[in-house]
Amino acid sequence: MELIERIEKALEAAFEPAQSANTPPRVLQAMRHAVFPGGARVRPSLCQAVASACGNSSPAVTDAAASAIELLHCASLVHDDLPCFDDADIRRCRASVHSEFGEALAVLAGDGLIILAFDTLVRAASADPDRVLKVLDVVIKGVGLPNGIVAGQAWESEPTVSEELYRQSKTGALFVAATTSGALSAGADPDPWRKLGEKVGEAYQVADDLLDAVTREGQSDKPVGRDAALNRPSAVAELGVSGARDRLKALVDEAVAAVPECDHADSLRELVRTQSERLVPSVLRQSAA
Amino acid sequence: MELIERIEKALEAAFEPAQSANTPPRVLQAMRHAVFPGGARVRPSLCQAVASACGNSSPAVTDAAASAIELLHCASLVHDDLPCFDDADIRRCRASVHSEFGEALAVLAGDGLIILAFDTLVRAASADPDRVLKVLDVVIKGVGLPNGIVAGQAWESEPTVSEELYRQSKTGALFVAATTSGALSAGADPDPWRKLGEKVGEAYQVADDLLDAVTREGQSDKPVGRDAALNRPSAVAELGVSGARDRLKALVDEAVAAVPECDHADSLRELVRTQSERLVPSVLRQSAA
Repeated sequence: MELIERIEKALEAAFEPAQSANTPPRVLQAMRHAVFPGGARVRPSLCQAVASACGNSSPAVTDAAASAIELLHCASLVHDDLPCFDDADIRRCRASVHSEFGEALAVLAGDGLIILAFDTLVRAASADPDRVLKVLDVVIKGVGLPNGIVAGQAWESEPTVSEELYRQSKTGALFVAATTSGALSAGADPDPWRKLGEKVGEAYQVADDLLDAVTREGQSDKPVGRDAALNRPSAVAELGVSGARDRLKALVDEAVAAVPECDHADSLRELVRTQSERLVPSVLRQSAA
Repeated sequence: MELIERIEKALEAAFEPAQSANTPPRVLQAMRHAVFPGGARVRPSLCQAVASACGNSSPAVTDAAASAIELLHCASLVHDDLPCFDDADIRRCRASVHSEFGEALAVLAGDGLIILAFDTLVRAASADPDRVLKVLDVVIKGVGLPNGIVAGQAWESEPTVSEELYRQSKTGALFVAATTSGALSAGADPDPWRKLGEKVGEAYQVADDLLDAVTREGQSDKPVGRDAALNRPSAVAELGVSGARDRLKALVDEAVAAVPECDHADSLRELVRTQSERLVPSVLRQSAA
């Protein structure tokens, strides 16, 4: 609970410099609509948890890293929901940004959120410029070319898709940015934390595929059945529902095992397991009960 | 000539980290289509010229600043040309990015260029981290909220538009970023260079309004008559063609006068005058001849 409050407070603070008497009001509303109220805040939670495990010696930099990653995640959802991509009218149980504000403001809101993410990190540089520059580097790798979110989304416009690259770029890269930036913001070596990000990212992707495949329209907070409709790679298409569910369980175990030895390793493993098990679509949890 | 070569070479270098065997090819093609071959490269020229006038003591940082500003300018054009904004099929005498690659890749190319701009600056941090962080701050102000390009484009979605804010944000802010980042990248105080950026930005906007109003379809490298069609603020609507032309001349004089005393101030004033006079639409230059 305390962790979520910390994340929400840091996100509110990230918006402050954008809000002035001169700000065009509707694009700001659209940006806020994309960020508040949020989803599970999985990525910033992971970032904060890793920073805590590494001693959390520069909380201002960690807050900025966690916020930047969530802002970039929200930006990617806004653009991914546009009519030229997923054409999704619903996101987090209410109108998506373009449904509520129109396409032009949705494009600008995504752009504005990307820039605000970098602004948030640069403003934290006074606390520790060296750590901020290292965090900027891993965050950029999580979203840009060749292997970040933009690359992942762009694979959807290619005639042939490397499934592994697609998953790593579209989902895995920002989870890796979350764990490695958490370590870097606390002054620790990021390398032992890569695998945790990769495994949580893979688990998240399989869970999302399951959610898309097994949830009925109206039971999810976003449109369902999109993977099959858009002929996208999916763990369900490859393994079936039962196989995908087994794969998800195995990935959660691998994620837990990927937590390196550190202070509070046991509580971090518990957090990874709890957060990951929340990913299993409720309809499957019920059927197992 | 040497200056333009330097700018093109730095832009090519900026793309290198994005290009790998894992890069989805079409989004990279779309990003390159937006940047090469370029227009007049006015903003990076201004950045480089100011850095030279300030001693150019860290050329790697100046090259990164000039490249980042041009990449962000190109990103704004890609998104501004989309059907939900200007719906422009032509840019720089050939197909705009969405006409050539489709809307999805145009949205992603813009996103990718924004991220590449920040990547370019962060990679230059090894040369001088302190200067790079200062440059990042002014570049972000040139593109984000409350007063950068995203804000300027967003004013077009408001029921009432503050014309001054609209111009300052949509055009002026990135010119101010060009002059102030040029100074900062050379270790100089940016404040004396703000006014030059503001005045060149105003001149550029009036020139663009004139071009839009007086050029016939097919004589420009982009669609014309858009300001009137979209009911946007325009110096021509306000002052008429002749009045707008007088205003442009006055602004060029003000820009020249805004060059602070520095080494090579005379050659910089000459550059500002020459570059600014190139802004006058050729049809008006011919009619004055």
